Amino acid sequence: MKRIALAADLGGTNLRVAAVSESGEIISRSSVATPPSKSFDDVSRTIIELARELIKDDGERESIEGFGIAVPALIDQMTGKIIKAPNLPDLDGNDLAASVALGLGVSAVLENDATAAAIGENWKGASKDFSTSICVTLGTGVGGGLTIDGRVFKGIDGTAGEVGHMVVEPFGHPCSCGSNGCLEQYASAQALVRIFYELRPDYLGTMIGSETAISSGDIYEAGVKGDELAIAVFKRMGFYLGVAFAGIVNVLNPEAIVIGGGVANGWDLFAPEIERQISARAFQQPAERVKLIRAKLGDDAALVGMASSVFAFERKAI
Amino acid sequence: MKRIALAADLGGTNLRVAAVSESGEIISRSSVATPPSKSFDDVSRTIIELARELIKDDGERESIEGFGIAVPALIDQMTGKIIKAPNLPDLDGNDLAASVALGLGVSAVLENDATAAAIGENWKGASKDFSTSICVTLGTGVGGGLTIDGRVFKGIDGTAGEVGHMVVEPFGHPCSCGSNGCLEQYASAQALVRIFYELRPDYLGTMIGSETAISSGDIYEAGVKGDELAIAVFKRMGFYLGVAFAGIVNVLNPEAIVIGGGVANGWDLFAPEIERQISARAFQQPAERVKLIRAKLGDDAALVGMASSVFAFERKAI
Repeated sequence: MKRIALAADLGGTNLRVAAVSESGEIISRSSVATPPSKSFDDVSRTIIELARELIKDDGERESIEGFGIAVPALIDQMTGKIIKAPNLPDLDGNDLAASVALGLGVSAVLENDATAAAIGENWKGASKDFSTSICVTLGTGVGGGLTIDGRVFKGIDGTAGEVGHMVVEPFGHPCSCGSNGCLEQYASAQALVRIFYELRPDYLGTMIGSETAISSGDIYEAGVKGDELAIAVFKRMGFYLGVAFAGIVNVLNPEAIVIGGGVANGWDLFAPEIERQISARAFQQPAERVKLIRAKLGDDAALVGMASSVFAFERKAI
Repeated sequence: MKRIALAADLGGTNLRVAAVSESGEIISRSSVATPPSKSFDDVSRTIIELARELIKDDGERESIEGFGIAVPALIDQMTGKIIKAPNLPDLDGNDLAASVALGLGVSAVLENDATAAAIGENWKGASKDFSTSICVTLGTGVGGGLTIDGRVFKGIDGTAGEVGHMVVEPFGHPCSCGSNGCLEQYASAQALVRIFYELRPDYLGTMIGSETAISSGDIYEAGVKGDELAIAVFKRMGFYLGVAFAGIVNVLNPEAIVIGGGVANGWDLFAPEIERQISARAFQQPAERVKLIRAKLGDDAALVGMASSVFAFERKAI
């Protein structure tokens, strides 16, 4: 009988569920849009339904070790409840793990999605050969997970790793977290679009149309074709990532900084500027040590990470 | 026969040597000005001489377990040699531990002085009840040491903890490290004096004389007496410390931030602004968790820390 873990990655836009083997291989998967109501009941029920179908689909009889759910939220380490899910506020204060566990009859555990991605990249991805690393996810926001001495470091309350909320401009753009000048305001998909509009007056020759709403993808495509405005936008993003990472390099002396998430597709347009800032700003020895690398597991990082958590928990329980 | 550790704290201005008991008590001590030549030979010889006198002074026969030397430098973790000592450049590339060990006939070990202070505060001082904490030393520069899960975290190359070289103003004042806008440029004794001159044009009513060279101590004394310029200088320092600490709180979710060093004497003038920035900028849960506290061991932190390292090494060797 094969041992598998169920894993889910709940986002503001999509919900994905997978069955993952002990070796970290995704055996089967399904994906739907996040329920439009974004209500706790609908989210919980949809996760249970997707998981039931996955289990039913599998012909071979399997032992389900547990269910790991990555959520875009802070999680209370004592109670397992969601403290705050900025993009799914109806989940705040609710016990999603208990609800799913009850519905499916398997144990369930939650994890912050950026932490889950870091666990996944650590287990099977870009950071697996490094004992101390930072995994940063560039998407709608900027998430992060810290690995120290081979283990994901969550801090006393489980809130560690929020690299997106280091201050890189003390009098900078207001952030949804309540602060201002956070890295997230300079290195997320939303930030790219805002910076585009900020810089546009200086780049009249841009190929990007000014009439319609633009996306970070539009800016990326223009940048690849050599558009100077788009290149300046990504360079500014790289500058601020480099400012934050130089501080991390000086404070943590890590072996690797792993960058994932959808915005990481613009790698060639922003990574050289990160390298330049780290090299110009961090101490020589840790700056030469640290490797700046792309995440390897793509959208599967959090699913693989949650499976790892499930199997690790089972190992500890034995 | 009592077991003791020898400990030294080498600074750009003073050199202090002590004999420390297994319980962390300083049994005897002596202090001299750092040799004016600042040459490797003079520094090494002076340390040996001070230590010899200390040992001779003690009437009771003692077992010397080793010699721990705190230095204002980056240390190569493989070779034990000094990589870079910005204020004592003749030490760069030299093996101070070997030289002292040879001269005294006891084993010797080096440690960065801010790391040593963190170890000391951890063992017997302000952070001893916390498993994850940051110890920041505000002096001529800004040093730092990280404790994670109860142990000082030095990073893969031993350079971790350089909180003073997080970037807090990306286009800010040039730093001696080669970057610009480092925390050290806003929160050290030197920085206070520079900020004083920057702000003076806006505070014509200041009680601080403008003819003579002023020191950070002068600014502190004026601040205690209610001088608005001095209060504004310390508030700016607190602002930037808070900007850096808010990032650390979000990334590491530590239990405590411990502040020591000579400039920490201005505590009442800058600490409230740190608290304000952490509270305004960091996530609520880790911001409410973290305690901002003064170091307890004063100038002895590094000496006590080096003694701890010596005794810990002995324990491991057994």
